[in-house]
Amino acid sequence: MSLERVPFELSKDYLDLVLQAVEQHDDAFIRDTMDGVNPADISALLDEVDTDEARYVLDVLNNEVSAEVIEELEEDTRKEFLEELEPEEIAKYIVEMESDDAVDIINDLPVKTREEVIAAIDDPESAAHIQELMRYDEDCAGGLMAKEMIVANINWTIDQTIEEIRRQAENVKKIYSIYVVDDKGKLKGRVSIKKIILANDETHIKDIYEDDIIHVETYMDEEEVADIMQKYDLDAVPVVNLQGRLVGRITIDDVIDVITDQAEEDRQLMSGISSDVEEDDTIWAISKARLPWLIIGMIGSTLGALTMGVFEQELDKYVTLVFFIPMLMATGGNVGIQSSTLIIQSLTNRSNFEESLSKRLLKMLFTAILTGLVLALFSFVIVLLWKGSDQIQFAMVVGAAIVGVTMLASIMGTITPLVLDKLDVNPAIASGPFITTTNDILGIIVYLAIANLLLP
Amino acid sequence: MSLERVPFELSKDYLDLVLQAVEQHDDAFIRDTMDGVNPADISALLDEVDTDEARYVLDVLNNEVSAEVIEELEEDTRKEFLEELEPEEIAKYIVEMESDDAVDIINDLPVKTREEVIAAIDDPESAAHIQELMRYDEDCAGGLMAKEMIVANINWTIDQTIEEIRRQAENVKKIYSIYVVDDKGKLKGRVSIKKIILANDETHIKDIYEDDIIHVETYMDEEEVADIMQKYDLDAVPVVNLQGRLVGRITIDDVIDVITDQAEEDRQLMSGISSDVEEDDTIWAISKARLPWLIIGMIGSTLGALTMGVFEQELDKYVTLVFFIPMLMATGGNVGIQSSTLIIQSLTNRSNFEESLSKRLLKMLFTAILTGLVLALFSFVIVLLWKGSDQIQFAMVVGAAIVGVTMLASIMGTITPLVLDKLDVNPAIASGPFITTTNDILGIIVYLAIANLLLP
Repeated sequence: MSLERVPFELSKDYLDLVLQAVEQHDDAFIRDTMDGVNPADISALLDEVDTDEARYVLDVLNNEVSAEVIEELEEDTRKEFLEELEPEEIAKYIVEMESDDAVDIINDLPVKTREEVIAAIDDPESAAHIQELMRYDEDCAGGLMAKEMIVANINWTIDQTIEEIRRQAENVKKIYSIYVVDDKGKLKGRVSIKKIILANDETHIKDIYEDDIIHVETYMDEEEVADIMQKYDLDAVPVVNLQGRLVGRITIDDVIDVITDQAEEDRQLMSGISSDVEEDDTIWAISKARLPWLIIGMIGSTLGALTMGVFEQELDKYVTLVFFIPMLMATGGNVGIQSSTLIIQSLTNRSNFEESLSKRLLKMLFTAILTGLVLALFSFVIVLLWKGSDQIQFAMVVGAAIVGVTMLASIMGTITPLVLDKLDVNPAIASGPFITTTNDILGIIVYLAIANLLLP
Repeated sequence: MSLERVPFELSKDYLDLVLQAVEQHDDAFIRDTMDGVNPADISALLDEVDTDEARYVLDVLNNEVSAEVIEELEEDTRKEFLEELEPEEIAKYIVEMESDDAVDIINDLPVKTREEVIAAIDDPESAAHIQELMRYDEDCAGGLMAKEMIVANINWTIDQTIEEIRRQAENVKKIYSIYVVDDKGKLKGRVSIKKIILANDETHIKDIYEDDIIHVETYMDEEEVADIMQKYDLDAVPVVNLQGRLVGRITIDDVIDVITDQAEEDRQLMSGISSDVEEDDTIWAISKARLPWLIIGMIGSTLGALTMGVFEQELDKYVTLVFFIPMLMATGGNVGIQSSTLIIQSLTNRSNFEESLSKRLLKMLFTAILTGLVLALFSFVIVLLWKGSDQIQFAMVVGAAIVGVTMLASIMGTITPLVLDKLDVNPAIASGPFITTTNDILGIIVYLAIANLLLP
């Protein structure tokens, strides 16, 4: 291998050595072995130790590295850790962070501590940036953006722009583009860094900038921002306020976090976990997140049981009817989840031309009929094979019920996420226990009603 | 608004005007109205028209824009479209693309066409790059990387490096970093573009490059690459071969596609859709993707029915028993899905320190017991409220069955994804109909067995 030490291998042994060094106050060991290690790796290490030990290690490292380590800590660990620090200590790290990360961390602090931390920040520009960003909702473009970026006046030369880059070099980690504004601060366009390198020093920005660039507004929803950046393959996007003034920029790393958080939230909603828990949370926290939907599912199936109670006489007469209840329930549940997932997927990848609602429902209905008929044929054969060919009438009841359930479950699975989306609720919840439970009950009702009609 | 025309508003009216222009061969209209429009927007438009019309529009636009439009088309539309083109026509667009995108598109063509397209590429360097990249599996780092990047020899000066940037400016759309290699082409490190701008022209690369940078190897799995780039907030990562030679780089836009594709695949597997379909596919394609898991679910619930057949006498005696089968099934299914989702989530966010298997199973078991007891209490109350207080024995059967089912379903839901992951199967499949069906049957067996034991 041509390069050493990368990616850093985190071993249990090294963790033990670090803990030993903390105990013996061996600062040199900590400083030397962590020199050049990526902060994200140090975070992974500190996620495993106590707050006091983490604090010791971060004190030994330089503030800039420590700030990055704190940014990369797991949310739970970070919260615990920051609770132990004095506001002045937090401020010392905050001032080293990019403004968007700083605000995310400050927003996690208790309200009183927030004020104290901001008061303790000794760089007035940084404090002003943070206070400005705190005004925005966390889920919108304003809440994602950072103040750090390179801005050039449209009348500048390349030389003046490079001077500005030099001035900001410390603050702006990644440049991506230079944004061009007029004297009033209104966004006019951008110049790629490639052009800056290749242009003559005396060239004017106004002669080389691109004027038709994509931007977002402060109030835009974070998922809309993510869609735009993904669709147009942007690494960074400028954010303007209502007056068209450039107020910040959003970089692709923040958008990746939006995308992965969204995927995780969808997965949890689809499986009926009601709050954001992880496998390494406490047993109590996990149970608390799981119980609500399980109890709702239970109430739902009690309704199913009550339905069966209504048909008690029929069930008493034909016990065989009961045997196929699981099949009807399973089919209804599975069909409903499939339908809602397809709809949610098309809600996620919104294209510019959406088919009309009636066309979508019609298509869904045809799919349901086709699927239902195949499954009905299948169940018909199963019943005959098991119960003998004299049970044709009974096999027909099961088959007819399967078609009915498939159609009803498809309709439910299609409409529910569409309604939820209109109500601004994450439609992924529809693929979870909600649809399953509803379809379980629908399955039972349809089945027993058809049996009641067709059997002597 | 300070900027016009961005994001481009795609209207049905404009679509009609374009179609009319195509019919009347009004090239000027097409060229003028699409000038400066982002290629991704033109793609969204062409996704809605016939192949012949799309071909006409792309012929009118310049090749560079058309190539980008083709890249951004939906996969299905693109496939259909390319089938209509001659190899020479495809080659004309391919040569304008970055090598990784070119290879993705060529790999979608029939084998015979691939050869013809490569033979028709008139730029030998581009053809060589494509042939090199085609050797790699699509799912590994080699399959994600592009050959376009700026590479500087460690002995060069800044001046020489800027000369290289000028030479490659056309090919490399986004620079991100300049990679530093030795005379043998081995990766030594990188120089940020910021440093290039700020350094003196006579400075040597070897005096300013960073040597401890993160890289990946060609054979690395694409998801591992995505994890690394996300963990370390990288916009681009250099790819080296087994000899440590720099062979390409992976940019963040490709990794975002990996992340979103993975999320979509997980969602589909969790809902029992067996191949990659979308709402706008044909009814037949959608049904075909949905039927396999529905049929498997049906076979599973037939096994459930057979189980009930074994207990036919008991069911005949106590019809009330039947009423709670849906509740047991629903609880087993929901608990199983929740457990598997938590495990899959922790498999996705692999940290460096994993808890041991036994510790995880133990924790899961305690959670199951806690959850099971709460649910049992709940069901106990439901039974008593409904059936009256003389049914205490029956309420106990239901409660005991709930605890048993919760524990069994948790174990299944925990172990199945772990086993699938070991077998290199996407564990998300475990959160789908597989777990639900298994737990349906388990629920019935546990319930009826307990009833058989406890009821007189």
